[in-house]
Amino acid sequence: MDIAALRDKHPEHWRKAAAIRTLTLDAVAAANSGHSGMPMGMADVATVLFEKHLKFDPKAPKWADRDRFILSVGHGSMLLYSVLHLTGYEEVPLEEIKNFRQWGSKTAGHPESEYLDAVETTTGPLGQGIANSVGFAIAEEMLRAKYGSKIVDHYTWVMAGDGCLMEGVSQEAIALAGMQKLSKLVVFFDDNGITIDGKVSIADITDQVKRFEASGWHVQSIDGHDPEAIDAAIEAAKADPRPSMIACKTHIALGSSAQDTAKGHGALTDAKLIADTKAAYGWKHGPFEIPADVKAQWEAMGARGAKAHAEWRERFDALSERKRMEFERAFAAEAPKALSAKIRAFKKEAVENAKAVASRKSSEMVLNVVNGVMTETVGGSADLTGSNNTRSGDMEVFSPENRSGRYIHYGIREHGMAAAMNGIALHGGLRPYGGTFMAFTDYARGAMRLSALMHQPVVYVMTHDSIGLGEDGPTHQPVEHLSMLRATPNTYVFRPADTVETAEAWEIALSTSDRPSVLALSRQNLAPVRNEHKTKNLTEQGAYVLREAGEKRRAIIMASGSEVEIAVKARDILEAEGIGTRVVSVPCMELFAAQDEAYRKRVLPAGPVRVAVEAGVRQSWDRLLLGERGREPKAGFVGMEGFGASAPAETLYEKFGITAEAVAEKVKSLL
Amino acid sequence: MDIAALRDKHPEHWRKAAAIRTLTLDAVAAANSGHSGMPMGMADVATVLFEKHLKFDPKAPKWADRDRFILSVGHGSMLLYSVLHLTGYEEVPLEEIKNFRQWGSKTAGHPESEYLDAVETTTGPLGQGIANSVGFAIAEEMLRAKYGSKIVDHYTWVMAGDGCLMEGVSQEAIALAGMQKLSKLVVFFDDNGITIDGKVSIADITDQVKRFEASGWHVQSIDGHDPEAIDAAIEAAKADPRPSMIACKTHIALGSSAQDTAKGHGALTDAKLIADTKAAYGWKHGPFEIPADVKAQWEAMGARGAKAHAEWRERFDALSERKRMEFERAFAAEAPKALSAKIRAFKKEAVENAKAVASRKSSEMVLNVVNGVMTETVGGSADLTGSNNTRSGDMEVFSPENRSGRYIHYGIREHGMAAAMNGIALHGGLRPYGGTFMAFTDYARGAMRLSALMHQPVVYVMTHDSIGLGEDGPTHQPVEHLSMLRATPNTYVFRPADTVETAEAWEIALSTSDRPSVLALSRQNLAPVRNEHKTKNLTEQGAYVLREAGEKRRAIIMASGSEVEIAVKARDILEAEGIGTRVVSVPCMELFAAQDEAYRKRVLPAGPVRVAVEAGVRQSWDRLLLGERGREPKAGFVGMEGFGASAPAETLYEKFGITAEAVAEKVKSLL
Repeated sequence: MDIAALRDKHPEHWRKAAAIRTLTLDAVAAANSGHSGMPMGMADVATVLFEKHLKFDPKAPKWADRDRFILSVGHGSMLLYSVLHLTGYEEVPLEEIKNFRQWGSKTAGHPESEYLDAVETTTGPLGQGIANSVGFAIAEEMLRAKYGSKIVDHYTWVMAGDGCLMEGVSQEAIALAGMQKLSKLVVFFDDNGITIDGKVSIADITDQVKRFEASGWHVQSIDGHDPEAIDAAIEAAKADPRPSMIACKTHIALGSSAQDTAKGHGALTDAKLIADTKAAYGWKHGPFEIPADVKAQWEAMGARGAKAHAEWRERFDALSERKRMEFERAFAAEAPKALSAKIRAFKKEAVENAKAVASRKSSEMVLNVVNGVMTETVGGSADLTGSNNTRSGDMEVFSPENRSGRYIHYGIREHGMAAAMNGIALHGGLRPYGGTFMAFTDYARGAMRLSALMHQPVVYVMTHDSIGLGEDGPTHQPVEHLSMLRATPNTYVFRPADTVETAEAWEIALSTSDRPSVLALSRQNLAPVRNEHKTKNLTEQGAYVLREAGEKRRAIIMASGSEVEIAVKARDILEAEGIGTRVVSVPCMELFAAQDEAYRKRVLPAGPVRVAVEAGVRQSWDRLLLGERGREPKAGFVGMEGFGASAPAETLYEKFGITAEAVAEKVKSLL
Repeated sequence: MDIAALRDKHPEHWRKAAAIRTLTLDAVAAANSGHSGMPMGMADVATVLFEKHLKFDPKAPKWADRDRFILSVGHGSMLLYSVLHLTGYEEVPLEEIKNFRQWGSKTAGHPESEYLDAVETTTGPLGQGIANSVGFAIAEEMLRAKYGSKIVDHYTWVMAGDGCLMEGVSQEAIALAGMQKLSKLVVFFDDNGITIDGKVSIADITDQVKRFEASGWHVQSIDGHDPEAIDAAIEAAKADPRPSMIACKTHIALGSSAQDTAKGHGALTDAKLIADTKAAYGWKHGPFEIPADVKAQWEAMGARGAKAHAEWRERFDALSERKRMEFERAFAAEAPKALSAKIRAFKKEAVENAKAVASRKSSEMVLNVVNGVMTETVGGSADLTGSNNTRSGDMEVFSPENRSGRYIHYGIREHGMAAAMNGIALHGGLRPYGGTFMAFTDYARGAMRLSALMHQPVVYVMTHDSIGLGEDGPTHQPVEHLSMLRATPNTYVFRPADTVETAEAWEIALSTSDRPSVLALSRQNLAPVRNEHKTKNLTEQGAYVLREAGEKRRAIIMASGSEVEIAVKARDILEAEGIGTRVVSVPCMELFAAQDEAYRKRVLPAGPVRVAVEAGVRQSWDRLLLGERGREPKAGFVGMEGFGASAPAETLYEKFGITAEAVAEKVKSLL
């Protein structure tokens, strides 16, 4: 690579881009870890994008109508940190650059949206950023349709690498974006031909241009080190009505002795290599030193966005107060005040109707209420709309022809759906929920974990939540999934027992702004167990006494979801035999764990035998069975020990021994 | 659709294909559930494939050199069951067809490889079959290189639907197959334009032909109801040196009133619809009735394969006894007798050397031994070879140029890797292991669950197994994953504490033929804790006393992996204060649970305080802490309560309080 020629051709541009490159070299060297190559390769694209196109205001990182910049290739975090520092984001002073990857710094190894306002989404697990971006771009289209282009009108820009494009989730994202004609989505592909194991060609020969074209994208291939070509390509991308991919041929670790090698992908910390590279760059400044003129040029880039922001603010202030408040409430992820009253009324009616309904159907009934009172909800399903019951009566379908639609056919793409929902939630102003069969949380885990890590209130509507799914068999029957989801930090896992609990779970999920919720819902009908109306949301306590012992209390049966009905029947059997039995419904273990000790002990006092019943594995129940002075041999579990089978649901419950009789027997065997 | 024209043009073919269609209609109606449309749409392709091309012997479903037929679109299971019945597989008598989807039948809702010998792989979760098929085709190439084309020379045929191709894992599979030029892999794409939610176009506009071409495939588009076109396309596919995709334009639920609709995708059970459809087919026979001449034509199709099998048997018998035994041992997934002695010698040397090594590095040291004595191992990594340490010294890379290579660069494709490994294991004759960072089991879960469900001894080498990963931060640090994996039925989760335990874990994993193993391995160096050589494999017991209390036993500290060293140090602190403390190493909870009660009580007697330490969440430890008469308030846990952070590993352990001092304090607080 003739670095001198690059320098000479665009000397001003070169120095700005070199600032990214040298900050990267210095920060990685100081941390003695990190990834130098990508920021060095993509610095030119970043410089042109920030200088000429990106709408951003360093003084207001969270301004609602900013362009979104998503570093899907998250290990290149120093590119982002460098640019944020250079353009003058207060949250990234030089100290933060110097503390790259250290305890307590905001400049984590990979960009964490929790740490920095300007990080739009946490990236690092490859492919997530590009898949999030589809959600961002969908949100932009929806909100533009809702509030008008004077209030919402921005681009979503993505930098993705070979790794992002090899991950399967990228295909789900690319195909969805192409179908949805998300014209304000632009992806820069860092086409450097190198991965950790070596040349891309040892694992991939895909013609990415052709692949994107196959899904309806506008595609260009350019020299990623030519600022004029970059600028022209961006202009062309903006002009095209399709989502755009710009394949940028770059040199990883440009200008260093590790250029174009797998070594260049990682941490370049050798002092001589760094010195030689800086010499090649014509960079005569000390570590972390940015000449004042370069810094000033970078800081000037924010002026365009600051002006746009001020103009936007005027337009926003001209909105009606109602509109403004609605906008701000939605961006704060606050539920409307009316929600609780609507849910209470719904619960009352559900108690009065007292109908056996599948909880997936109960969920649809709740959504019919919710979607009326919360216009910010965005529903969807991974091609199981009629099974997940996620589309409420009046929801129109979002499409290129109807940007006002609030329902998304995500296609058979659970991972892409979850990642897109993260993007929608992160964009702000909308509240996404989406459904699939609970067994297929397996496909979506990569993104579901990020909902939790990023504190995003995405709602996962996971129906067919046990062997109760029946004939489809073990591949479709979750067994370990409830324990797996409960093991995940910062996630509410709700498994409601009937229509009332389903409404309560939805109310909590929609009133929560700082974590995802999973609703585990039944395929099969569930008898109502909440037979008396309470205005209070009992699910908020996580677990509560559903039926008190009639006779002297000798046993406590705990259950969730479809097995609460079984617990209640087991109690009937036991009470008839004079064995006093309390039934505790456990719709949400995380909320129960958050109650004070006194409450927990009131619900689960030491002494009585404890039996839990759930059509899943035991693991997550051990704490409630054995903790807080529950103990063996006075505790037992009725549930699954292995995978399910293919047969009608009732047969499966019978054959796997998850019945009221089995629960009653278990209690008696422990007494 | 002019059914009469189809009938008239190829009357013999038509009747054979109609047998699949009507058996499907009858079985789905009897079960009152299932999927009629796909078998009705793809019956023509199946008929031509089985009649003219597929190498199969109904009398020997497991014959090693049979062609593999993979129904990726698993919900169309009745296509496979019909064909197996029609061609005369004894395991699928008419009774099984009549008991479709019922308890105890082999004809489960989706094809389960556990139930029927002729089911090559369990499908249903979409995309898995096509991703498995890459593993099958890789295995065929590798074994052909190893044993010669007289012994191994067969095709892998796949039927995939829109759902399979929308799932991201299909992209990983397609790209890997294209790069590897797997010429004996042929995918039939059931291009019917319909999914559960409606037309494919509501969620996808991808030009699949172009997409496959972009990854180096040979592609054809044909009328999927024209037997001559199907035959010609198959011939062309065989002749091309690339993997082949044949897009078969078909009509879902062909000939019924639900043809070409989403309704047709599901269960067609209406009696009139069925009667009308059969009338359109010109099918005058009763339910489940196959005319003798049609049955005879189907049964005759097996003759070609039976002859090929007999000829193959002669060639196989002509091999040397050593070669035959090696082949049969590998296909039985049995470890060679020499393995144990080699591992014992390795362990002895490891004890003598007594070096602190990261367990990922220990694993590489073990692999250097293993890969020498087991020529059937196939290593690989999802682009983290140098981090996972999965490539032992002498392993060549498998590529189009070197089919003898035993190491696969899977690319940045964790899900595709796991699914391909399932395919390699299912093919038989090879034993796959593959690596990535443990946090990215999230990406691979869809396939990892299937390893467990299918009882396949795939080994997952999951390195960087905790916050010990350090600076890469919370996205890359597993926290919940150990509990999640332990919640999964039929899976061994090993977390070895040092080089000796790593060798023991590998020995068990490679001596196991009926389930997958996960090896959770550290990035950071681990001090040796097994300081005395034992020939016995202590890890086989799952947990064992590593250090006995010196003073009177008042506490038991349990730990796994990198935290065993911390437990041992905590014991030192406590013993110095006169508090007798036993340390129990827990490398595999599943194996400990399988020990008899007497052993478990010997290791974890009631009485002493119990503290567990693991740099993950507590969930899976509750049973050992609180069960078998462990109890609160005499039990405690030192580990993680939420996600990790970005900083050097030692800092993280300190800041998150996972230290010997913290463990000793926890013990004292409970005494």
